[in-house]
Amino acid sequence: MVTKKEIAEHLGISRTAVSLVLNNTPSSTISNETRHKILQAAKELGYRDIEVSPKLCYVLYDRDANDPRYMVDLQIMEAKASDFNYGLVFLNISSDPLSLNKLHKYLDNQEIEGYILTGDVDDNLLELFRNSNTPYIFYGMPLRAQEEINFIAFDDRTLALHATEYLFSLGHTRIALFMGSLDYEIHQLNLEGFRNAHEKNGIPLDKSLIQISNDENGYELCKRTDLLQLKPTAIFCVNTVIQFGALQYLQSTGVSVPNDISLVGSGLSELVKVSSPQLTTYYVSAEKKATTVSMLLEIINNRNAKETVSSRITEFERFAGGTASLRKP
Amino acid sequence: MVTKKEIAEHLGISRTAVSLVLNNTPSSTISNETRHKILQAAKELGYRDIEVSPKLCYVLYDRDANDPRYMVDLQIMEAKASDFNYGLVFLNISSDPLSLNKLHKYLDNQEIEGYILTGDVDDNLLELFRNSNTPYIFYGMPLRAQEEINFIAFDDRTLALHATEYLFSLGHTRIALFMGSLDYEIHQLNLEGFRNAHEKNGIPLDKSLIQISNDENGYELCKRTDLLQLKPTAIFCVNTVIQFGALQYLQSTGVSVPNDISLVGSGLSELVKVSSPQLTTYYVSAEKKATTVSMLLEIINNRNAKETVSSRITEFERFAGGTASLRKP
Repeated sequence: MVTKKEIAEHLGISRTAVSLVLNNTPSSTISNETRHKILQAAKELGYRDIEVSPKLCYVLYDRDANDPRYMVDLQIMEAKASDFNYGLVFLNISSDPLSLNKLHKYLDNQEIEGYILTGDVDDNLLELFRNSNTPYIFYGMPLRAQEEINFIAFDDRTLALHATEYLFSLGHTRIALFMGSLDYEIHQLNLEGFRNAHEKNGIPLDKSLIQISNDENGYELCKRTDLLQLKPTAIFCVNTVIQFGALQYLQSTGVSVPNDISLVGSGLSELVKVSSPQLTTYYVSAEKKATTVSMLLEIINNRNAKETVSSRITEFERFAGGTASLRKP
Repeated sequence: MVTKKEIAEHLGISRTAVSLVLNNTPSSTISNETRHKILQAAKELGYRDIEVSPKLCYVLYDRDANDPRYMVDLQIMEAKASDFNYGLVFLNISSDPLSLNKLHKYLDNQEIEGYILTGDVDDNLLELFRNSNTPYIFYGMPLRAQEEINFIAFDDRTLALHATEYLFSLGHTRIALFMGSLDYEIHQLNLEGFRNAHEKNGIPLDKSLIQISNDENGYELCKRTDLLQLKPTAIFCVNTVIQFGALQYLQSTGVSVPNDISLVGSGLSELVKVSSPQLTTYYVSAEKKATTVSMLLEIINNRNAKETVSSRITEFERFAGGTASLRKP
């Protein structure tokens, strides 16, 4: 990309003259000869008058390329941003300093109007944005209410409650919960919702049915449940990767899903539809997810406001896959 | 984003004066008072001197949000682009005219240095770029050699040959081919490679083992093979979605993979690692895929060259998942 400065240097004339001519500014101080020379050089050197469209940036932080959950969200954000005539820059950042430099560079040159931040967010990233005056919004992760940052979170407690009550409505009372480490808030919230559903409906909860796998391996969780003879008639899995591993274990041992065991998951990843049967899962609608972009644009437009903005999504859709059905009598 | 023009209008002075001051150009024609007024207004109105980093654009064309194959590629391209200090804009385009307008807008304002185009590319898109002088490269799809466009393609014929020969090397001779419609060149190429492998190794090919599903449903393909009692000892699937459906059918009917049947796939999608066992598959390495970005940068730097640039990747890696093993004696 040739700059005005380079054209000026190429011709050995002032940058001002080049600017005046290329910006088409009326000026009597530049001769027709010079004007012609500048336009000629601009053409030869491939100068283009670039009008930059405003940009948002979707930052995927500290996440594996193999995580199937983010492409759907990225496409939703891109569609919504372009409705508002914003372009979307994609940035994949790991927590190592060299990678973080990419983000610092964007923050320094200020060309991005606002940031959507998602992935495995850590305190470094929170601090970076909390202390900057760049518009941003953290998206999709559960966040402690006291954090004074802009965020849009999913109320996973309510999702777990809905999913568990749906299984109750199908006649299931012996429901297993498959989840990851309780070090993560998302798993704490799922546990709370699962418990609340039992209390609210007066259904006793057998704690042996709560099974945790730190590496979120649904296949192993299901195998373990089998070997321990826990005999649930349904399982709520806190994400589709766990659900999918559970389905594979059940299929490999001749258990029919949903005839023998029902599976309900959480989230709408690429796995949902390529699975056979498709996965029954609770998820946040694309419209609701897209409000992230509208909220970010509001933050941009009120750039000087001191208050932080946040929203917790409490409404969920059910994708009617084929992994949940009425309990066999 | 406040522009220089808006600052000029706000102050009722010429845009040239604002440009001269904000660009820090030495000029004796502007009084200190005016200079001060401009700087003050720029501060109050939130003007920022934006230095835009050069951008490439990754266009995903006419593809479902649920297709699991593109996130990995997007991350590879972003990483490589940022190695060269380029940002990456993500654009999801469908073939309808409103959506194509998004692309036209970018092409018109010329802010993108070059385009990586992938997905279900049609003649419209080919024409659009063939006839423009914007740098571009079509990525990853098989393309007829006579197309005079810039592209990087995978030699799926060679991949299918390698995958089939790998199964031969494990002792399999009765290998099924699971593929999609022969209307698509990628499936024609896979069939050729599969056939060539048989010929080259003197192994007779039972054509009943070539099974086609227009909706690329691996579960159904496997069920069909079962009902027709075709009894392959191994299957080569032309993508991981088909492979994955096949694995699920086999697991649901008590067939052990890889003990009873081996499965080899093509491509490295998010499915490969979340599956249990993980999928054994042939794929193009991230390094090879990333050459798309280097090729595009070369095209950008030789913008005036008339020749088109293309490359066909013929080297593949094998991901050693757990779905292929020595044939049982």
